[in-house]
Amino acid sequence: MLKPTDRLTDRLKIRHPIISAPMAFAGGGELAAAVTNAGGLGLIGGGYGDPAWLEEQFKTAGNTPVGVGFITWALRKSPSLLTDALKFNPVAVMLSFGDPRPYIDEIRSAGALIICQCQTMDHVWDAIDAGADVIVAQGSEAGGHGASRGTFTFVPEAADLLAREAPDTLLLAAGGIADGRGLLSARILGADGVLMGTRFWASKEALVPDRHHSAILSANGDDTVRTTVPDIARNLNWPMGFSARVQRNAFVQQWHGQEAVLKKNLSEEGPRYAKAFAEGDPDKTCVWFGEAAGLVAEIETAGEIVEKIVSEAAEFLPT
Amino acid sequence: MLKPTDRLTDRLKIRHPIISAPMAFAGGGELAAAVTNAGGLGLIGGGYGDPAWLEEQFKTAGNTPVGVGFITWALRKSPSLLTDALKFNPVAVMLSFGDPRPYIDEIRSAGALIICQCQTMDHVWDAIDAGADVIVAQGSEAGGHGASRGTFTFVPEAADLLAREAPDTLLLAAGGIADGRGLLSARILGADGVLMGTRFWASKEALVPDRHHSAILSANGDDTVRTTVPDIARNLNWPMGFSARVQRNAFVQQWHGQEAVLKKNLSEEGPRYAKAFAEGDPDKTCVWFGEAAGLVAEIETAGEIVEKIVSEAAEFLPT
Repeated sequence: MLKPTDRLTDRLKIRHPIISAPMAFAGGGELAAAVTNAGGLGLIGGGYGDPAWLEEQFKTAGNTPVGVGFITWALRKSPSLLTDALKFNPVAVMLSFGDPRPYIDEIRSAGALIICQCQTMDHVWDAIDAGADVIVAQGSEAGGHGASRGTFTFVPEAADLLAREAPDTLLLAAGGIADGRGLLSARILGADGVLMGTRFWASKEALVPDRHHSAILSANGDDTVRTTVPDIARNLNWPMGFSARVQRNAFVQQWHGQEAVLKKNLSEEGPRYAKAFAEGDPDKTCVWFGEAAGLVAEIETAGEIVEKIVSEAAEFLPT
Repeated sequence: MLKPTDRLTDRLKIRHPIISAPMAFAGGGELAAAVTNAGGLGLIGGGYGDPAWLEEQFKTAGNTPVGVGFITWALRKSPSLLTDALKFNPVAVMLSFGDPRPYIDEIRSAGALIICQCQTMDHVWDAIDAGADVIVAQGSEAGGHGASRGTFTFVPEAADLLAREAPDTLLLAAGGIADGRGLLSARILGADGVLMGTRFWASKEALVPDRHHSAILSANGDDTVRTTVPDIARNLNWPMGFSARVQRNAFVQQWHGQEAVLKKNLSEEGPRYAKAFAEGDPDKTCVWFGEAAGLVAEIETAGEIVEKIVSEAAEFLPT
């Protein structure tokens, strides 16, 4: 029989096994609070290290319990960001893209749960070693940063490893999950719950310009690509092995495969990218959604999204 | 509730919704017959056009009903291969990697079902247009040739399109399916059944050297990569957009990213690759398995594999 979701929902004190991804820029306090209020857990995107923005988002979430997620290699450059965030008593801190070990003690002392997002089996071993409470197996389908493993094989392989090596560690599936079919499949593949980015990016509470929302509604799942173009354009020194899945729009088509040229033209292209992003332009900057785009037909509230996914999944289950 | 698998099993006259992929070289008559005898449907790998080999495999399958699969762009160069294969009354003909339309009438006239394997939503539209009886949504996790969409998002998106545009067309999921969890998840995501390559590649009946089988048993799902290296090494002119997932072994690590150099050294490296492959060497040639490697712990018979998958999937279902 299907594993119950209780051990996740009990540990996180939530009703539904649905967590929102801590999307840089898009995942602010309003979205995180809306996901928690709908019965899941919302995570604020800690991003690349803007303490004023992060404080504002925690304040927006108010008294609603939320968590926060960091890009681990960026945190290394501004470790005070973690210290500042812990003052807001986040339920959980998620660490992705780098060695989590330097931050474990501080997070644990503050009483927050530790979520480690993984892209390879080696990452899963590291997360077990670090003592993560929750491990996220993130497949390549995910929007934003990630790596190459597919959700469909990575989740059961990670589940088998956890069953053997760390049976009390919880597992979330991420990458391509956007509806009740995805939630239930993720659980059958061995996850206790799901972490969803793209589906919540396409919510009314996400900090996403209208024209970017329009782009996902007219896209299908073929219209994205993993690329380093946005990182080059933003002059962000991402570690090897990671890339960002974004819409294959005019900007990306111009530069994907021409990365060296983009680098050379950075003094012109960098400010142009930033300006277009700030203006909400959907063609001259990157639009951050994943392969689940083909499963998103509407911009709804986070509450409507959670409700719909839970009831879709329940339709498959015996009453 | 879960969609019943009847419409697939009735149409193919099988007991279990499990089809073996027509793997070039590895998927011969013995494997195809064993899968059919276990209650699924076996497909012989038509490969790149060796009529004597193909005839031998059909003869090995004997009176057991099997199907056959072709690499469509290769078939274009030797269309008589299809005509020859149809003399053996295959249950189904699967076409992958190219426009299926030129072959539809001949297959239909011979009374075989038409299976079209797809890697993008455009392919799915083409397959509907061609009048396919069965469409395979193949995710990037698959071993051997394929493209970039992940199984987890491609299957439900294809299922939604079929429900709208061609509700009688059946859907198989492929790419990363190797156990009962995979079968059941694929069905929940919207597939009527599954097409499995890697799991059957790792069977006793597959035409795979022992040392290649040893390689999969010590590999995990991180140990593969999508690359054009084997196609360059074999001087096969694959169309743009496709690549092969193979083990990231010594040979692949040497040449992946150095494709232009490999091309230049082809007069030396080509024969070396072919010799190593013929000798069953696992390091100096490509070893053809996908991300499901991490879910394969044993080389079993195809019958044992089918039995196990069906009973694992049944454990999740209400009795």
